[in-house]
Amino acid sequence: MSDSFRDQLEVFENPNPQRNFSIEHHCPEFTSVCPKTGQPDFGTIQLTYIPDQMCVELKSLKMYLQSYRNEGIFYEAVTNRIMDDFLAVVKPRQATVKSSWTPRGGLNSHITVTYPNPE
Amino acid sequence: MSDSFRDQLEVFENPNPQRNFSIEHHCPEFTSVCPKTGQPDFGTIQLTYIPDQMCVELKSLKMYLQSYRNEGIFYEAVTNRIMDDFLAVVKPRQATVKSSWTPRGGLNSHITVTYPNPE
Amino acid sequence: MSDSFRDQLEVFENPNPQRNFSIEHHCPEFTSVCPKTGQPDFGTIQLTYIPDQMCVELKSLKMYLQSYRNEGIFYEAVTNRIMDDFLAVVKPRQATVKSSWTPRGGLNSHITVTYPNPE
Amino acid sequence: MSDSFRDQLEVFENPNPQRNFSIEHHCPEFTSVCPKTGQPDFGTIQLTYIPDQMCVELKSLKMYLQSYRNEGIFYEAVTNRIMDDFLAVVKPRQATVKSSWTPRGGLNSHITVTYPNPE
Amino acid sequence: MSDSFRDQLEVFENPNPQRNFSIEHHCPEFTSVCPKTGQPDFGTIQLTYIPDQMCVELKSLKMYLQSYRNEGIFYEAVTNRIMDDFLAVVKPRQATVKSSWTPRGGLNSHITVTYPNPE
Amino acid sequence: MSDSFRDQLEVFENPNPQRNFSIEHHCPEFTSVCPKTGQPDFGTIQLTYIPDQMCVELKSLKMYLQSYRNEGIFYEAVTNRIMDDFLAVVKPRQATVKSSWTPRGGLNSHITVTYPNPE
Amino acid sequence: MSDSFRDQLEVFENPNPQRNFSIEHHCPEFTSVCPKTGQPDFGTIQLTYIPDQMCVELKSLKMYLQSYRNEGIFYEAVTNRIMDDFLAVVKPRQATVKSSWTPRGGLNSHITVTYPNPE
Amino acid sequence: MSDSFRDQLEVFENPNPQRNFSIEHHCPEFTSVCPKTGQPDFGTIQLTYIPDQMCVELKSLKMYLQSYRNEGIFYEAVTNRIMDDFLAVVKPRQATVKSSWTPRGGLNSHITVTYPNPE
Amino acid sequence: MSDSFRDQLEVFENPNPQRNFSIEHHCPEFTSVCPKTGQPDFGTIQLTYIPDQMCVELKSLKMYLQSYRNEGIFYEAVTNRIMDDFLAVVKPRQATVKSSWTPRGGLNSHITVTYPNPE
Amino acid sequence: MSDSFRDQLEVFENPNPQRNFSIEHHCPEFTSVCPKTGQPDFGTIQLTYIPDQMCVELKSLKMYLQSYRNEGIFYEAVTNRIMDDFLAVVKPRQATVKSSWTPRGGLNSHITVTYPNPE
Repeated sequence: MSDSFRDQLEVFENPNPQRNFSIEHHCPEFTSVCPKTGQPDFGTIQLTYIPDQMCVELKSLKMYLQSYRNEGIFYEAVTNRIMDDFLAVVKPRQATVKSSWTPRGGLNSHITVTYPNPE
Repeated sequence: MSDSFRDQLEVFENPNPQRNFSIEHHCPEFTSVCPKTGQPDFGTIQLTYIPDQMCVELKSLKMYLQSYRNEGIFYEAVTNRIMDDFLAVVKPRQATVKSSWTPRGGLNSHITVTYPNPE
Repeated sequence: MSDSFRDQLEVFENPNPQRNFSIEHHCPEFTSVCPKTGQPDFGTIQLTYIPDQMCVELKSLKMYLQSYRNEGIFYEAVTNRIMDDFLAVVKPRQATVKSSWTPRGGLNSHITVTYPNPE
Repeated sequence: MSDSFRDQLEVFENPNPQRNFSIEHHCPEFTSVCPKTGQPDFGTIQLTYIPDQMCVELKSLKMYLQSYRNEGIFYEAVTNRIMDDFLAVVKPRQATVKSSWTPRGGLNSHITVTYPNPE
Repeated sequence: MSDSFRDQLEVFENPNPQRNFSIEHHCPEFTSVCPKTGQPDFGTIQLTYIPDQMCVELKSLKMYLQSYRNEGIFYEAVTNRIMDDFLAVVKPRQATVKSSWTPRGGLNSHITVTYPNPE
Repeated sequence: MSDSFRDQLEVFENPNPQRNFSIEHHCPEFTSVCPKTGQPDFGTIQLTYIPDQMCVELKSLKMYLQSYRNEGIFYEAVTNRIMDDFLAVVKPRQATVKSSWTPRGGLNSHITVTYPNPE
Repeated sequence: MSDSFRDQLEVFENPNPQRNFSIEHHCPEFTSVCPKTGQPDFGTIQLTYIPDQMCVELKSLKMYLQSYRNEGIFYEAVTNRIMDDFLAVVKPRQATVKSSWTPRGGLNSHITVTYPNPE
Repeated sequence: MSDSFRDQLEVFENPNPQRNFSIEHHCPEFTSVCPKTGQPDFGTIQLTYIPDQMCVELKSLKMYLQSYRNEGIFYEAVTNRIMDDFLAVVKPRQATVKSSWTPRGGLNSHITVTYPNPE
Repeated sequence: MSDSFRDQLEVFENPNPQRNFSIEHHCPEFTSVCPKTGQPDFGTIQLTYIPDQMCVELKSLKMYLQSYRNEGIFYEAVTNRIMDDFLAVVKPRQATVKSSWTPRGGLNSHITVTYPNPE
Repeated sequence: MSDSFRDQLEVFENPNPQRNFSIEHHCPEFTSVCPKTGQPDFGTIQLTYIPDQMCVELKSLKMYLQSYRNEGIFYEAVTNRIMDDFLAVVKPRQATVKSSWTPRGGLNSHITVTYPNPE
């Protein structure tokens, strides 16, 4: 099922591949569903990357993130899956995906995945 | 007595152990009791870690932190004890526990414990 | 049981009863227990009043509010009960009790009770 | 279809109907769908009321608001419909529903409906 | 020339004309041109109204406000002209237009126009 | 003893007694001593008034407020006493004294005294 | 000397005298000199008015306020004098001048003058 | 066409070329046009550099940035093009251009270009 | 005289000397006296340290800091003296004392002392 | 002319020259004159240093910074000149001067000079 989400990501040619410049997209309107309780989760997805030959197209990123709206998936899993899909399609030099979630049971959580893998 | 608290922590399998990604849980609703005055203390517990094979289950973390509600324990001791319990059960690659306390006598305090032990 | 809590409130003589001046006490460290789930609730209690012949003694107010720590009681009920106890003991000219609660299930709530009863 | 949403709202008996006290619930996790574009909308619903004989049960309010997750409906319509449902089920003395929406096309909007109807 | 701008405003039928509810649209991305210096001005337009039989359509409002992008017009004039156009097309029961401008020469300005005319 | 403090307040002639204009002085550096515990209290004093024939001289107000540095006095009493001294020396048309205190025992307090006495 | 400052204020014709709309100018860069100590004072001047037949020209207002840069004048006097000059030249229907000053000796002050004179 | 924009940038001689000091200019009033939709984009441009023999003249920088007002250009391209023009004209030792954009479709973006090229 | 202040600091045994964890105490209620003008100074003292065998007891720290209430001492001297006393009594592995002072003459100051001495 | 300003800076003996501690003074009330337009500029000067044998006396620093009140000088020049004067008189081990300016033409600027010269 992950692959079908991934297909929504589109790219355009990096206009300045000779530079290591960074691009940051914030999505404060992310929502998915808790697989255990069936209740909706709400969070912010922050994606930062240094493009190589391709940049992610902004509207396709929006559509991709909307795919999770009715998907049952845990915090840790969705953050890693967004990274996997982004790496597979956009092939950046570096990337970070950070998710920040509204409180559940008095606890609020943040997950951060980085590529390449930090030591 | 510490061991019985520790038993409340539950884990699930890390879905991405091949990555060093970080997980951060904030609990702004922590309360324990001052062993000297018998008065309640109020604070925020912030737990950040890089999981190895296991992640802490969020609801069990909430229940574990609630165990301190009527426990008489000093700031320094509770912060270290949460770290000890977390290391024993979750066995992370890295972890930080930070507690921040509301003012008492015009002073407010913050304790930070890190694993592995910084030089 | 309410009466025994009420007994903790102590008063001192209003030093300036000839004036209608206002006194406001904020307690950001209030906690009680949800009678339905058994889970702790956390909130801020804000008490504002115009004293008549008596003012509430600050330390006794603190002890009174701490009485709710292990008491199972709903948001609406606790706010009204604090008002009832305050009116019975301190007999103010005017009073407002406002409670503000941390989020539960993505909803956060505020209850406001005023004396005399607004039309 | 509105009626089936409305059925999710549950009430409990107002513990203090002799007072005109106010209750305020904030839901910063509201989402519905734009009927024109099919794109999700995100906003905060703020409900304030003076109860008469009944109060709205908090968990049922959460479930009721979640019903709009995949419902195509305009800002103005959803705010009025929440008011209609609330009035029909909870029968308050006074009520205000305010919705605040994240920006679309550089514009962000707020709708406020009040009962009884202001002159 | 004003009339041609005005033609961009579109309306839809007020779904709840039996109520006096309020609608507020904020546009923090407004820009026009100073007729004296030819330099661009930047501001926020805030429009609040109680609709009668019609509501302003959001996208047409955006296009209408964009019409001023290369228009030379003073702060006071543009705020009044937006009100004139809005009254002519949407015919609200009440309306307020407020413009807030970024600093020029160390001074920042705010203009507020209200309908009906306050005494 | 109050009278000796009062003697430190100096006035100058109101340059515009034909107008009812307001003057507001904030002192965020106020400290006195709790008469019960002997511990220092810290707060902000906010004085707002409409002068009649006299205005308070700013440096003398500073010296007057510093007089309380080692004075044992309760929150309610000091706020009323500052009002009494101010009325006696400056004879304003209207005045408000508000004191806001740092937390003690998890409670922070605000006292507001107004002249003439509100009904 | 006041008259020469006043001469710097210029007006333009109110484009909408049929409406009672409000204009607000903030000048956070105001500075004058304390006549007692010779030290510079720094503050914000906020001018709000409902124009009658004339509006104040923005650049002339800036130049007028700069006239005080090396003028020795007290807080109360300068606020009233700005009002006097504004009334004499611009002849508004209503006006408010508010000055807010950076701290001196731990005290910060705000002066507010209103026309017509409030009762 | 880029060259004609670039011609607007003017320089003056660095008064202290013996030091590596930094200069930062923020422009919160930047606007260009989306080449895909024809809709205006709004953002902040932040330029930081260590000058070598020349500094950029502030007014010419303002005029240069205004050139983009009616230019259709993507976020990534405009940020890189500003860097190219700045390097060509001002020849700094180091420079960073950061653009931050208001939300579109619920996503807001930030682009950062650095010279010399980071590894 | 310094030694007598120092005697107020009390310690307790570090419960976890095997770890290098940090403890931070903030005192926003510090006051001393300017030795030149005799006027009170107000500031915040922030103490951060890694304990070795001892931790400072919180109430004794409060009493120690209160000793400066009527002591004439400069900003730089008091910050260094607090460090000297803390090192002598608590013998930490590392420590930082930072003082932040309210404005005097339009200037506000911050002093930071670190142990061991940074190169 | 620079030398005459410099003469206003006075020093006192560093009470703790054996330590590398830092001193930070903020002056949010700085004003000079633009040499091109003759208009006043407003900014904040932030001075941070590690003293060697001398510390700058606070009141003399205030008087020194006031010298620029009617001096025509550019942002870059004044920041470097303050550093030159400070180095010549106070001879610190390290120092940073940062100036932050209110917006002109929609641009606000920050200049940072560091000693010793960074590579």
